[in-house]
Amino acid sequence: MRYFVTGAAGFIGSNVVDRLLADGHEVVGYDNLSTGNEAFLASAFASKRFSLHRADLLHDIDAIARAMEGSDFVFHFAANADVRFGIGHPRKDLEQNTIVTFNVLEAMQRQGIRRLAFSSTGSIYGEPDIFPTPEDAPFPIQTSLYGASKLACEGLIAAYCEGFGFSANIFRFVSILGERYTHGHIFDFMKQLTKDPHTLTVLGDGSQRKSYLEIGDCVNAMLLAISAAKPTKAMVLNLGTNAYCTVSDSIGWITDELGVKPTLQYTGGSRGWIGDSPFIFLDTRRIRDLGWRAEHSIESGVRMTVRYLVANPDLLQRSS
Amino acid sequence: MRYFVTGAAGFIGSNVVDRLLADGHEVVGYDNLSTGNEAFLASAFASKRFSLHRADLLHDIDAIARAMEGSDFVFHFAANADVRFGIGHPRKDLEQNTIVTFNVLEAMQRQGIRRLAFSSTGSIYGEPDIFPTPEDAPFPIQTSLYGASKLACEGLIAAYCEGFGFSANIFRFVSILGERYTHGHIFDFMKQLTKDPHTLTVLGDGSQRKSYLEIGDCVNAMLLAISAAKPTKAMVLNLGTNAYCTVSDSIGWITDELGVKPTLQYTGGSRGWIGDSPFIFLDTRRIRDLGWRAEHSIESGVRMTVRYLVANPDLLQRSS
Repeated sequence: MRYFVTGAAGFIGSNVVDRLLADGHEVVGYDNLSTGNEAFLASAFASKRFSLHRADLLHDIDAIARAMEGSDFVFHFAANADVRFGIGHPRKDLEQNTIVTFNVLEAMQRQGIRRLAFSSTGSIYGEPDIFPTPEDAPFPIQTSLYGASKLACEGLIAAYCEGFGFSANIFRFVSILGERYTHGHIFDFMKQLTKDPHTLTVLGDGSQRKSYLEIGDCVNAMLLAISAAKPTKAMVLNLGTNAYCTVSDSIGWITDELGVKPTLQYTGGSRGWIGDSPFIFLDTRRIRDLGWRAEHSIESGVRMTVRYLVANPDLLQRSS
Repeated sequence: MRYFVTGAAGFIGSNVVDRLLADGHEVVGYDNLSTGNEAFLASAFASKRFSLHRADLLHDIDAIARAMEGSDFVFHFAANADVRFGIGHPRKDLEQNTIVTFNVLEAMQRQGIRRLAFSSTGSIYGEPDIFPTPEDAPFPIQTSLYGASKLACEGLIAAYCEGFGFSANIFRFVSILGERYTHGHIFDFMKQLTKDPHTLTVLGDGSQRKSYLEIGDCVNAMLLAISAAKPTKAMVLNLGTNAYCTVSDSIGWITDELGVKPTLQYTGGSRGWIGDSPFIFLDTRRIRDLGWRAEHSIESGVRMTVRYLVANPDLLQRSS
């Protein structure tokens, strides 16, 4: 099989690339390296079965289609992946998520490629009333431009399934942790603690409850799902652990791992930022019914991530 | 109050314009006249409180913002409004619905205008399992590019409410009938019967069940909803009658009204086109709880529409 992977140099994309190559597949990567990191593809470049297109997905559908030629399956991970800063540049989510996804679908259509997996998000549930939140939760009201843009992508993908015979796995992720993690609360906290180990500013009141999933578990789940029965149209699957923690829990594990005892300064409020969801905890029965289990607890995932960033201090110098 | 109405020369937009002017308001219309019809604004032009910008919403946010200056409230009706032909030109729904809505929101943001009403659609529910379908139905899978694009618009609007303090009424319409109706099954059937009153080709098997609402009832519902308590964020309201009919029922009323007895040729299948929903029937308790009632039955709406098109035969010559 030949897989086409957008966002191939990103956190999730590069881990999937490595796994696909290890499984003996051919992989064509596509990444504009705006947030991706070519260093994550070091082992991939050692394989003759891997190639990378350093190009953008926003403007040139023809170029995407040419790069896709001969591929059997598309993993679409390229995105503006940070939920927090949407209101500072609202066009970014529209362009990098909604319009880019349209371009990928159109390129697939031109090449007659109809199998797709897509990284969506638990943020799409807004502020749900049901926990753990199932895939068929009540029709949500969006609370972030990031969630809204991923909702738009899901809608486009489902419409291409219905209209053009595509078959898609749509994965709604909790936050993913582990090797090559490069943005999110652990990243921010470690950046702060690197500058000043005595003080840590925490967005919100620390009581926000979040669920996390380790990247290896995430990749296992995706590869299991796409190897199961091919969806007739769009199949939505939550991916997460069967647990959650508070921001304060996570701070405890991070500071313990680092051996620091900072004074915590909370900015206050039950949300860390506008559009923050105070509680994310997804019902993962669908993926567990396929036989998948997470091998890592949230605590284990947090500690692995801290150790990874300690071992790769240059990553903390990056802007996001 | 000064209202800014996009799609002001369209079926629904022009009816709202007339009502707002009759109620003593100022109205600024914005329409590129691609599907709108300036003749629908004949009475509006007689008012000094009305002005029309003949301009497009897709490319120039600055121009939209300038036209909006001084307005208090935006009705955003401009859209690619036909659910049926999405797969023939998928970019159209993305551009005319999703991106245009983003542009309208950005223009509002620049002008500090935060009150909005938006025309969404019952197509957004895809193929639901619950009838009548409530606003908080299980998270749907999209079945059309049109529905997907309206879903994207709803998500953007809700995110602007959360992020920027906007207040929005999102109306999910069934198909609207009545004066100035210019596309949909009655239009298509009458076009066919004008050419040949002896034969009528019907998409699907005629058993599709649909709900319809007369335009005067629709305008009443919207104006009632926006005059009720201002939503703190995005409030979604289904608009429809408390009933449905089959396509065959509707054909009976149309042919009776026209005095013709064509041979019916069904294309077959439970869906009229790819992405057609075989059953649309919305739960309208929310709007009825505000005191609204439909004054016209579906049959009355269909017959009014036929008589309107008979009295305005030039409309049937138009392409859509």
